[in-house]
Amino acid sequence: MSYDPDNIFTKIIAGDIPSHKVYEDDVCISIMDIMPEAPGHVLVVPKKGTRNLLDADPEMLAEVIKRVQKIGKAVKQAMDADGILLRQSSEESAGQTVYHLHFHLIPCHDNVKRKDHVSGTTANDELAANCEKIKAAL
Amino acid sequence: MSYDPDNIFTKIIAGDIPSHKVYEDDVCISIMDIMPEAPGHVLVVPKKGTRNLLDADPEMLAEVIKRVQKIGKAVKQAMDADGILLRQSSEESAGQTVYHLHFHLIPCHDNVKRKDHVSGTTANDELAANCEKIKAAL
Repeated sequence: MSYDPDNIFTKIIAGDIPSHKVYEDDVCISIMDIMPEAPGHVLVVPKKGTRNLLDADPEMLAEVIKRVQKIGKAVKQAMDADGILLRQSSEESAGQTVYHLHFHLIPCHDNVKRKDHVSGTTANDELAANCEKIKAAL
Repeated sequence: MSYDPDNIFTKIIAGDIPSHKVYEDDVCISIMDIMPEAPGHVLVVPKKGTRNLLDADPEMLAEVIKRVQKIGKAVKQAMDADGILLRQSSEESAGQTVYHLHFHLIPCHDNVKRKDHVSGTTANDELAANCEKIKAAL
């Protein structure tokens, strides 16, 4: 399967669609997931267009995973989480819905069940508040 | 939380506990998960001892993610899968049960539900057969 640049993440990267941006550098952006499985759920999205893990440039992946770690640590600290779940879905059967590579970082708390990803969007003010907390931890 | 080398993965890496090994180089091993969520579920385990994503050396992570991709592509091909789910759990709240960094690669098929990770071990001969298929695809 090939990469189609007509997807929401290219528009967010270009600034044509607004987002709650936690982090940005030359390699990637990190934004709040608008359908979080837990408060503070973020996505790390490389700027270079690639469909998913399977077709990505390995050297780009190597740079992205360093950002994933750095942002994951900030999410854990900002959300006072006990753990972090990292997930990346390649293709529909694995749960991929936007076909531009992205990594999920989900803060986890002991004895708190995560929501399903599709259980609804979160209010903008809550996303903005969590975004600010995570930026402050970076 | 600090890294404790007394865990099953250090024993598997040392060869003191048997495993179905898909891949090995100086950076990591990849083995069949004995409680697969789907047939062909493998783990990629760095040789360097680290608790999880949060305390890992970023340069080591950069090397490991290239292996994760390479092995993920082989798993997809070997198991004739439609997609690949990548997951990594840091701390108990995120589902971590062995405190030595490891990445899950789970082959996914359209309209096939994955099993829970704790739903039981798989027969050795089935693991061995899938291991051989994945090795052949690498």
